[in-house]
Amino acid sequence: MKNITAAAVLMLVSATSAFGDEGMWTPDNLPKAQVQANHGFTPDAKWAEHVQKAALRLAGGCSGSFVSPDGLVLTNHHCINSCVQQLSSAEKDYIKDGFLARDRKQELRCPEIELNRLDRIVDVTERVREATKGRTGEDYSTAEKAIKTTLEKECVGKDSAVTRCDVVSLYHGGIYNLYQYHRIQDVRLVFAPELEAAFFGGDPDNFNFPRFDLDMGLLRAYENDKPMRPKHYFPFSKNGAEEGEMTVIVGNPGGTDRQLTVAQLELARDSQLLSYLLLLAERRGLLEQFRSESDENWRIAQSDLFGTENSYKVLRGRISALQDPEVIALKRAQEKELRDFVDADPERKARYGRAWDEIAKAVALQRDIQDQYAYVEGGRGFYSRLYAYAKMLVRGADERGKPDAERLREYTDARLPALTQRLFSSAPIYPEFEKVKLGWSLTKLRENLGTNDPFVKKVLGRESPEALARRLVEGTKLGDPAVRKALWEGGSEAIAKSDDPFIVLARSIDADGRAIRKRYEADVESVIARNSELIAAARFEKYGTSVYPDATFTQRFSFGEVKGWDEKGVPVPPFTTMGGAFGHETGHYPFALPKSWHDAKDRINLDQRYNFVTTNDIIGGNSGSPVINGKAEVVGLVFDGNIHSLGGNYWYDERLNRAVSVHSGAMLEALRNIYGADNLVREIEAARR
Amino acid sequence: MKNITAAAVLMLVSATSAFGDEGMWTPDNLPKAQVQANHGFTPDAKWAEHVQKAALRLAGGCSGSFVSPDGLVLTNHHCINSCVQQLSSAEKDYIKDGFLARDRKQELRCPEIELNRLDRIVDVTERVREATKGRTGEDYSTAEKAIKTTLEKECVGKDSAVTRCDVVSLYHGGIYNLYQYHRIQDVRLVFAPELEAAFFGGDPDNFNFPRFDLDMGLLRAYENDKPMRPKHYFPFSKNGAEEGEMTVIVGNPGGTDRQLTVAQLELARDSQLLSYLLLLAERRGLLEQFRSESDENWRIAQSDLFGTENSYKVLRGRISALQDPEVIALKRAQEKELRDFVDADPERKARYGRAWDEIAKAVALQRDIQDQYAYVEGGRGFYSRLYAYAKMLVRGADERGKPDAERLREYTDARLPALTQRLFSSAPIYPEFEKVKLGWSLTKLRENLGTNDPFVKKVLGRESPEALARRLVEGTKLGDPAVRKALWEGGSEAIAKSDDPFIVLARSIDADGRAIRKRYEADVESVIARNSELIAAARFEKYGTSVYPDATFTQRFSFGEVKGWDEKGVPVPPFTTMGGAFGHETGHYPFALPKSWHDAKDRINLDQRYNFVTTNDIIGGNSGSPVINGKAEVVGLVFDGNIHSLGGNYWYDERLNRAVSVHSGAMLEALRNIYGADNLVREIEAARR
Repeated sequence: MKNITAAAVLMLVSATSAFGDEGMWTPDNLPKAQVQANHGFTPDAKWAEHVQKAALRLAGGCSGSFVSPDGLVLTNHHCINSCVQQLSSAEKDYIKDGFLARDRKQELRCPEIELNRLDRIVDVTERVREATKGRTGEDYSTAEKAIKTTLEKECVGKDSAVTRCDVVSLYHGGIYNLYQYHRIQDVRLVFAPELEAAFFGGDPDNFNFPRFDLDMGLLRAYENDKPMRPKHYFPFSKNGAEEGEMTVIVGNPGGTDRQLTVAQLELARDSQLLSYLLLLAERRGLLEQFRSESDENWRIAQSDLFGTENSYKVLRGRISALQDPEVIALKRAQEKELRDFVDADPERKARYGRAWDEIAKAVALQRDIQDQYAYVEGGRGFYSRLYAYAKMLVRGADERGKPDAERLREYTDARLPALTQRLFSSAPIYPEFEKVKLGWSLTKLRENLGTNDPFVKKVLGRESPEALARRLVEGTKLGDPAVRKALWEGGSEAIAKSDDPFIVLARSIDADGRAIRKRYEADVESVIARNSELIAAARFEKYGTSVYPDATFTQRFSFGEVKGWDEKGVPVPPFTTMGGAFGHETGHYPFALPKSWHDAKDRINLDQRYNFVTTNDIIGGNSGSPVINGKAEVVGLVFDGNIHSLGGNYWYDERLNRAVSVHSGAMLEALRNIYGADNLVREIEAARR
Repeated sequence: MKNITAAAVLMLVSATSAFGDEGMWTPDNLPKAQVQANHGFTPDAKWAEHVQKAALRLAGGCSGSFVSPDGLVLTNHHCINSCVQQLSSAEKDYIKDGFLARDRKQELRCPEIELNRLDRIVDVTERVREATKGRTGEDYSTAEKAIKTTLEKECVGKDSAVTRCDVVSLYHGGIYNLYQYHRIQDVRLVFAPELEAAFFGGDPDNFNFPRFDLDMGLLRAYENDKPMRPKHYFPFSKNGAEEGEMTVIVGNPGGTDRQLTVAQLELARDSQLLSYLLLLAERRGLLEQFRSESDENWRIAQSDLFGTENSYKVLRGRISALQDPEVIALKRAQEKELRDFVDADPERKARYGRAWDEIAKAVALQRDIQDQYAYVEGGRGFYSRLYAYAKMLVRGADERGKPDAERLREYTDARLPALTQRLFSSAPIYPEFEKVKLGWSLTKLRENLGTNDPFVKKVLGRESPEALARRLVEGTKLGDPAVRKALWEGGSEAIAKSDDPFIVLARSIDADGRAIRKRYEADVESVIARNSELIAAARFEKYGTSVYPDATFTQRFSFGEVKGWDEKGVPVPPFTTMGGAFGHETGHYPFALPKSWHDAKDRINLDQRYNFVTTNDIIGGNSGSPVINGKAEVVGLVFDGNIHSLGGNYWYDERLNRAVSVHSGAMLEALRNIYGADNLVREIEAARR
């Protein structure tokens, strides 16, 4: 992110509208002219609808796509890593050994994966505006939640098991859309390579390139206990990605902060990112040492450690981007350009002019109360699955007793299927690990809120964090899904009667969490939301719809091409080969290929293109997205970005920002010649015909 | 550090010279008029000499003082914690149980403690100036080192075992002084309370107040196997500190950054502090988990964890101070005031005008190479005592073959006694702990320099960090002090022949460390040093000697008084009582008092003042400093600062910044009524007569 020349900043300043391959576009507003100009391709409506419906969202935070008419789903290994871990045990370690279902009977259901296919988008801006008109603070916040819940309920209709609807705020409230999804919760594991192949290079290579990862996994969508038969799916291209070829990535970028105000960015830089990074760093050290204690601990902690290290690297890159004086200068200039536009006209000024200062005021309050919010209600002080279950049960009993529109958003009828999937999950719980994580996070709660904080005293009483964690974990029965189910179904009465120590704790602090949340939503979030809407409207007035909205973990199209970059004067070629993986080996984790690769080395086409980079504008959440060509064929599978892509949270730098993908040819080569997955190769290749 | 009003900033801007109780003053330049005005006391020459010579420095990073004519030394428990740990074993855990020598025969020698008594200060500015005149870059760096070594050698004379001399650069090169110390390496442990009493409240309460810590320890200085008989020592005051009373703290503040340029402060804020904080946070997590694995691990890791958590909190406070826009505004204003003064006169401008920009340029390079320097040469990549020994042996053999003035500074004849004390120390080495620490730090080396960095490849080869650490620790004999001694005495030949794996490693990377160090010293440090000298000279021209130099871990006097502060509108009283400690108990570490306190509760005067705060301007390194009154009697013992004191690295805020001390009366009360240390109480009280 360094070395941005002043000239480059000036160039970018006037380019608030997208240029080059910048942009994460909603399916209903594709930048046709821009794509035609850059790539000689026009994404027409039929093509767009096909792509929209062949693509998938993994509700847990990833993307994927159908790649066969029998419901085969392609995504990343790191997107299904938690499923692979949950299906493993000390006896069968699929993380280490990989998994292959040789026929459909061997496919194993993932306890917590939900797939969403986007079927319909409806503009509901007017209805939201009407409901919130003239309201502020808590009143605004309540009304906004109520209308969203109402809209979602109407949309879902009777069958919330197969229909999911989310009201999505685009352009920070510039537009409200209702996204209707087909929901699939019976998702089964078909194929996962060994972690050593999927995550070759491990954390050291994460967000780097050249790269040599088979970060793929295959799932199958089931309905009524039968493989689903999707109308739309992506066949694999015959040859895969070529240099200079246009690449389209369709997926669900989780979030970007490109349209935040400077005050918000400064808060992120000086406070939010720093605090959370320090927490992640410490958690990382804790998990590293826990993991090293035994093979079993290694397996148990792997998924938590991956998530921690991944977030750590992402946030480290973001803070570096924000510390770059030239990035902040760019943001200031962009903000000034829009404010000057607003101030130039008295009527516009009256309408929008105060929005930035109002946000700055909310941000000052946010700075003061964000730790309390994060630790008390956000769960930062209670790093434990068991606690999360207890909270869902206590809150859920309460909330389900209320009319839908008055509930906390995550307990509305439309959201319950996703919540209960997690709550009733058969994923194993490891008590010793729970004690370590919870005990540690309670010490962080104490550290961050202070020893004498009333909430801390309420939680700890005269116990030490470690002793409390031990007592809770050893005394609870919530590790058993049947117990959780009974408590859920027993409702308020069962919760009130329960003497399970986690339930007792969650019950006793429920009001504290609600109180800080209410304050945060009313005095911070709703102020920011209202004023961001104003800024969005001003932006529309100035730039029209030539701008794309910040990412919102909803479907976006990104157009780019296969292209290397120049790293401080050294060109980085866009491709690696499978043979290169052997050259990159040291023989020790994370730089050791699994036995299967060594056994198969003679059979592998070592010149096969393996990983590659493209100019597509993506971000976390896009993991598992298909990389397709103009014919809507899979040419690759996104799994990462290069190190420069981390600044992409704030701006897109076409010179350096690259998406990193597995080549489609390498996936087929590995399935065929390393894993002997002939059944899957046949299925994928048949889809092409 | 928040809530600095703009008015306060303006007030402070014009106050580059000290005001109120600000200032860490050298013994030869006490602010007599200021002290007289503030406290009605004049520190005359005789008084100053007495205080100077009764006070002590612990070479490892603390302060102390003689408190009896038989060489009894008072300092903090946390300053002798490593000695207490080194003398402990699985059978005798003095960290947990405390230690008391009932007579002199029971006193145990600390393996690595060195005491320094400051005997003489000589101004050598002219000789240094002469030697470095007109030189730049490496040439400057070499000449400066040579003259320092020469001056120190002349000063030490024949007996380096009892005389230590350090050339000290004050005012960032404004003045060079030679400090001559009496060196004492036979230092024995006399008394240490249980960690639970000394560090009651643990990390959560560290840098906080109200506080309830018996953070004291007693040592005895020996010479020729007999207790030393110092001429100067501090008797305990009869009643101890009173509210509003003047308090003088004499000790060795480690370092402050109050006179750095804005460019240097920005580097610290955006890069140095952040990187190191993240490393400390991760190390903290690692050590916390390691410690939790067994009682033995708890004891082994305690000192490392204390150091890590303490540094973490200090640096966290510093980064917050630098992120406060108003602190940076103050610094900018101060810099501008001086630069305007310089620019106002053409001759001055010619002499000093470029210094700030030259430093900014050096800082830009520093930003690029500081990681390499820290990881390759600074030891950040090799967190291991065994590696430190190997490096000392390899370097030492090489350096001792050169003329004294050409050696690296830490291997000059004047410095060898301190170095060999560490090298030949009988402190135990814990192989499993070494493996954990070294293995982890090697992964950080790889992470920070990059997998493909040539140095990383050279160190790791095809081994994993963990495997390399295992091989080194399991294959070495350096854990045995006799082996280290033989290698040291065997010199270059023994080192060349050694196949000890740590020696082999240290040998193979020695040149890499030297190369980056040379570059760093020539292109960063020497540029900053030369130009800081210019700024110092400009500052003298404008402000005269009414300013005090940044702290340099040399003796300083600080004048203040017993006084609470106002915490967001709530007054914090200056004293706590011993009874308050019982009220602050939860019964769980770190909020559990030891059994000795509970057993003695009936005998203790619960109203006895326990800890207290004063306005003295101190910083890390002052730990263990005596708090004395105008009669040079001990009224307390510094062990901490309040949370606001952490910003004291950059500026002194009299409204909030407080030193935290143990009351002299509480020390006597505890020795008498809890620990039954009648022998020590008699000795201390006899000193008063």
